[in-house]
Amino acid sequence: MSKTVSIALDAMSGDLGPASVIPAAREMLVAHPQLRLILVGDEDVLKQHLDGYRNSRLSLQHASEVVAMDESPAKVLRLKKDSSMRVAINLVKSGEAAACVSAGNTGALMATARFVLKMLPNIDRPAIITALPSIEGRTFVLDLGANVDCSAEHLLQFGVMGSERVEAAEGIAAPRVGLLNIGEEDTKGNEQVKQAHQLLSASHLNYIGFVEGNDVYKGGVDVVVSDGFVGNVALKTAEGVAKMISHNLKAAFKANLYGRLAALVALPVLKNFRRKIDPRRYNGASLLGLKGIVVKSHGGADALAFANAIGVAMREVEHNVPNRIAQRVAGHLSGESKL
Amino acid sequence: MSKTVSIALDAMSGDLGPASVIPAAREMLVAHPQLRLILVGDEDVLKQHLDGYRNSRLSLQHASEVVAMDESPAKVLRLKKDSSMRVAINLVKSGEAAACVSAGNTGALMATARFVLKMLPNIDRPAIITALPSIEGRTFVLDLGANVDCSAEHLLQFGVMGSERVEAAEGIAAPRVGLLNIGEEDTKGNEQVKQAHQLLSASHLNYIGFVEGNDVYKGGVDVVVSDGFVGNVALKTAEGVAKMISHNLKAAFKANLYGRLAALVALPVLKNFRRKIDPRRYNGASLLGLKGIVVKSHGGADALAFANAIGVAMREVEHNVPNRIAQRVAGHLSGESKL
Repeated sequence: MSKTVSIALDAMSGDLGPASVIPAAREMLVAHPQLRLILVGDEDVLKQHLDGYRNSRLSLQHASEVVAMDESPAKVLRLKKDSSMRVAINLVKSGEAAACVSAGNTGALMATARFVLKMLPNIDRPAIITALPSIEGRTFVLDLGANVDCSAEHLLQFGVMGSERVEAAEGIAAPRVGLLNIGEEDTKGNEQVKQAHQLLSASHLNYIGFVEGNDVYKGGVDVVVSDGFVGNVALKTAEGVAKMISHNLKAAFKANLYGRLAALVALPVLKNFRRKIDPRRYNGASLLGLKGIVVKSHGGADALAFANAIGVAMREVEHNVPNRIAQRVAGHLSGESKL
Repeated sequence: MSKTVSIALDAMSGDLGPASVIPAAREMLVAHPQLRLILVGDEDVLKQHLDGYRNSRLSLQHASEVVAMDESPAKVLRLKKDSSMRVAINLVKSGEAAACVSAGNTGALMATARFVLKMLPNIDRPAIITALPSIEGRTFVLDLGANVDCSAEHLLQFGVMGSERVEAAEGIAAPRVGLLNIGEEDTKGNEQVKQAHQLLSASHLNYIGFVEGNDVYKGGVDVVVSDGFVGNVALKTAEGVAKMISHNLKAAFKANLYGRLAALVALPVLKNFRRKIDPRRYNGASLLGLKGIVVKSHGGADALAFANAIGVAMREVEHNVPNRIAQRVAGHLSGESKL
């Protein structure tokens, strides 16, 4: 029998709040007998949403406040000490939960997690990593927006953390690490990228060199390292393209009577296609580099998407990701093995 | 009757060379009676590809060399003085052609164009702009890779040039200009972006503030300004997503017998859909900021795509884009009107 995994859920944040978190929690409890969940939020509101549902592996933890999506991280840190987000992270700090999941404000989540849990030794900044679909399977990309203006050393740290995360939690031995650039030649790119290329080449990682934006979706690389500004733009661009394509596909099938009839015939095929690239199946971005597991769900996540984020947290707990990163970092980034 | 438009075509560069340039030229000559084309390249090779075809509006200009896709711009500038690329640009300089189109090496094209044609007053660097499909219609994005490490002033120049290009050649009055960032709040972004936001806000442009990667494809903005590194990653990412989606769509329709039958029914609909997002219809990126018109075609362009790039060059000639940019820049970027 596998060991119990306890996860704290910030049940109040995100566009849907408990309306997506609670159905996700119920579904995951049924699917995973080793899972224990702690719903964090306003007890009255949560009880209303639970509507009589009880499960011995589900408990509530009251928190009187909620972090708004547009609140500044600094203000949240100073003033919202009893928010569902902060209390969920506190449960990780105290050891009552092995991980937490929140669909709240990324900046506030990052700042609070960093303040409460602290960074691992030799890691300067947390990085956000997520899986994206590729023709081959999945590609993991970091950083996705936690850090703008990264130095070459930061990019190296992202490479080490990303590689270890993917090796540990996805079971991919010696993941192929690529550095996002605007060409594959050594002369391309800005200064940080050129320097990071040197550092990564000299590291013990399975570094395959520069990759371009299209390689994320083509495959051939497991971990793509990027500064948070570029990574975030790439992620949002991809969302935009996918939406535009899906909009045009729908429009084509609605353009005339023939299209509408063809849509009926094609429906099962299109459903199968959509399932494969459904962004909800890729929901759940981890904050790496902290002394604890924190997973960020998309703010607009529905129950299926939020359940996926809980799955990401479970996988990181089961594979002890922060400890593995700490050990790897000790080997890679400290002392002479760096070069 | 409209005035004759002469365009020089670098007929040797790109993956297909004359095999895509010559059919594109023939098609465009038929479609546009005011068009005159000069094919630049090895005369023997070109004559072979022309295979007896003659047109009084088509002439040849011999050039003995070809720039390879991976040659360094500095080396090309120094050593390849009789390349089809250089000779085509020379024809613009001498006034024999009003524009040139090349599918060659972007770095070499940029460096050669800058060296031969020179920059417009008050513009530091050329920028690459292209149209991308959006749910609304089209969005123009610049810079797409000519410049990494841009200052806030460069981003302002891109905004002014992009706005003028779109207003002049696309007939969109007061185009909506957005600055690519990782959020819409003023606190988001790196230093250059924050400073550029101030400059753009104080300019006479129709500046709508920060936009995110998804807005390029959603619409609501006509000109998206970005540093070349970020813009190039966004462009390549979009290409990757579109390919992955199209791969998955094909796979879904090939998965089983039902899918294959459904594909037959859905074929006309899917064709219509594909036409809408066909990247060949968006081929042709302009190099803005030069004293002359240079259009870069995708290296892998086929005849349809190359013809589209010729169309972009024609539009810029007809609307006198470099002069209009020069005038606008004089108003915007010099003297007190900047702030």
